[in-house]
Amino acid sequence: MPSMRVSELGEFGLIDRIRTIIAEYRDCAHTPWQEILVDTGDDAAAWQSDGTVQLATTDTLVQGVHFDLDIVGWEELGWKALAVNLSDIAAMGGVPEYALISLAIPGQLDADDVSEFCRALAHFARQCGVAIVGGNISTAPIVVITGTVIGRARGATILRRSTASPGERIAITGYPGLSAAGLEMLTRKTVMDQEVAEILRRAHFRPVPRIREGQVLVDHGIRTAIDTSDGLVADLDHICEMSRVNARIWVDRVPVHRVLKAHFPNHRELTLCGGEDYELLFTADEDRLARVKLALDCPVTVIGEITEDAQKPRVTVVDSKGSAVQYDRRGWQHFRDEISKSGFRQPGTNSPPGKLSGRTGPER
Amino acid sequence: MPSMRVSELGEFGLIDRIRTIIAEYRDCAHTPWQEILVDTGDDAAAWQSDGTVQLATTDTLVQGVHFDLDIVGWEELGWKALAVNLSDIAAMGGVPEYALISLAIPGQLDADDVSEFCRALAHFARQCGVAIVGGNISTAPIVVITGTVIGRARGATILRRSTASPGERIAITGYPGLSAAGLEMLTRKTVMDQEVAEILRRAHFRPVPRIREGQVLVDHGIRTAIDTSDGLVADLDHICEMSRVNARIWVDRVPVHRVLKAHFPNHRELTLCGGEDYELLFTADEDRLARVKLALDCPVTVIGEITEDAQKPRVTVVDSKGSAVQYDRRGWQHFRDEISKSGFRQPGTNSPPGKLSGRTGPER
Repeated sequence: MPSMRVSELGEFGLIDRIRTIIAEYRDCAHTPWQEILVDTGDDAAAWQSDGTVQLATTDTLVQGVHFDLDIVGWEELGWKALAVNLSDIAAMGGVPEYALISLAIPGQLDADDVSEFCRALAHFARQCGVAIVGGNISTAPIVVITGTVIGRARGATILRRSTASPGERIAITGYPGLSAAGLEMLTRKTVMDQEVAEILRRAHFRPVPRIREGQVLVDHGIRTAIDTSDGLVADLDHICEMSRVNARIWVDRVPVHRVLKAHFPNHRELTLCGGEDYELLFTADEDRLARVKLALDCPVTVIGEITEDAQKPRVTVVDSKGSAVQYDRRGWQHFRDEISKSGFRQPGTNSPPGKLSGRTGPER
Repeated sequence: MPSMRVSELGEFGLIDRIRTIIAEYRDCAHTPWQEILVDTGDDAAAWQSDGTVQLATTDTLVQGVHFDLDIVGWEELGWKALAVNLSDIAAMGGVPEYALISLAIPGQLDADDVSEFCRALAHFARQCGVAIVGGNISTAPIVVITGTVIGRARGATILRRSTASPGERIAITGYPGLSAAGLEMLTRKTVMDQEVAEILRRAHFRPVPRIREGQVLVDHGIRTAIDTSDGLVADLDHICEMSRVNARIWVDRVPVHRVLKAHFPNHRELTLCGGEDYELLFTADEDRLARVKLALDCPVTVIGEITEDAQKPRVTVVDSKGSAVQYDRRGWQHFRDEISKSGFRQPGTNSPPGKLSGRTGPER
């Protein structure tokens, strides 16, 4: 077989390869594999440990790929580095408890910027009940931040990607596409009025992981969820792949934030394909969804249904008459949306961390 | 206060700052700080969890800082990325159980190289009884690998840096300096005979974390240990700082591997200051040390003693008459041994990952 570049294989091809290799080396006799509930195929790893279900996840933010230091503030970076990891624990319905942070930075950085980063991180961690217990510092030509969060399930149940059933409804918290709209505003330097600009900037740089919401889902018997880091369609496709089902999104039901409606003519693409919202996308029967809506403070919108596993694409987007809707299929995939010759991506295409999990949208 | 670059503050100054900031945000009422046994001040974090002591550590390897892709093989990189983390668990006397790996790589890499990396990692993990449960893939202009290992103590006891007492002897497993000698051979492209070259290359790229040895130390009542990643003197200084003691190294007792003696005129500097050996450096009374020596298969050498906290430098190196020995104080410190203008370090000065812990040698 001729050798292939990572960019030719693509992010999800590479992830598949890695998962296959790891599986080949499983050895339940001498390693704790038999205690593992989910591994590289979900938002976070989960294993049984003395009556408790432990959770762990890791995510990396790379300068020039996930953020641009000319746009992001260090305080925002501290927030986001933790938030992307907390969101993975939220998507399991878990309680985040401990964080480790590895910071690779150039020596010419202003030390006060690093302090600001750490203060924001520590402040946000405290706010979320998380103790920062360890980490690592090293020199690097660019800033690379890797966070790890360890937590636990509150009971025996965790939210998975693999448990969706035909007939269930699909729901989402909050408003998809706000983060991508924020990135679009920031990279195009669009002038917006202050309130709007603030909403968009916060959505992109200070996403609020749905920790309590994830726990409420578990309490109400919901079993299937993912956080929207790759984009609504792409993340729903992860659920479909792992659950071996298909899904239909009713495009007219997808909630569109008033700011998107007013300022972004491409709001359909942003809501369907924009990444990094860190909302919860979940499935359940109608009764459970109704109870969950009452129990949650945030918007919860039913946007579609799970169908039998029949064909590809796994996820279809339809209008009120049931006809397939066309939209510009964007959404980030590492290596495919490749970096420029300088080794850096073009601005305007920031990407979520690519978990060792599932495949993305069928159209790719 | 005027602003300062990270390189002016230095790695250990920065680590101090970060630890102070994290401590300011401690809040035992709403976060699990009260369960924490050691945090950023030791080889790994440790906390109490339902009768078990949990351990976690993270380490990053950065291309051009920790390794040179022209020298290292991908298989060796897979081994080392895991080994540096396992060594932190070994230095706590713990059992490593779960690993997460975050891989940031350029798209132009050969996908087979990434497969080779993963295969070596998975193979070595299995060998050590560790399950790889999660990870992350992303694009980056350079290769940055962050490993996280989660484990547990076998009982209630962990090895710490903070428990050394005056009067105790200092001992070390294996042969310090072999890894630094290997790096010197590789970067200077020194031609050695095959057996020697193989010993040195393995010492540098395939360090064997002292997992079983750490557990045997705990079983024999040893309480104080560290792994030698920064170098013998520097790591002993970490113990001294955390334990508020001084230490004396008897230079004539420091074991010098036959290969170092034969081929490296600078073997004193290599043994005292060379990093990345990942041996265990520990302290105990003479009786315990004698029993530990019998119980371990690897060389264990008594090389000095812990003394009262009196002065700086905390660590002194003396000859058989008790006179201070001069040596070229090297050893890696991030940001101080700064990168070249291209953003990369000069070859020949690879560095261990800089844990969020302790200060290094007093001479710095």
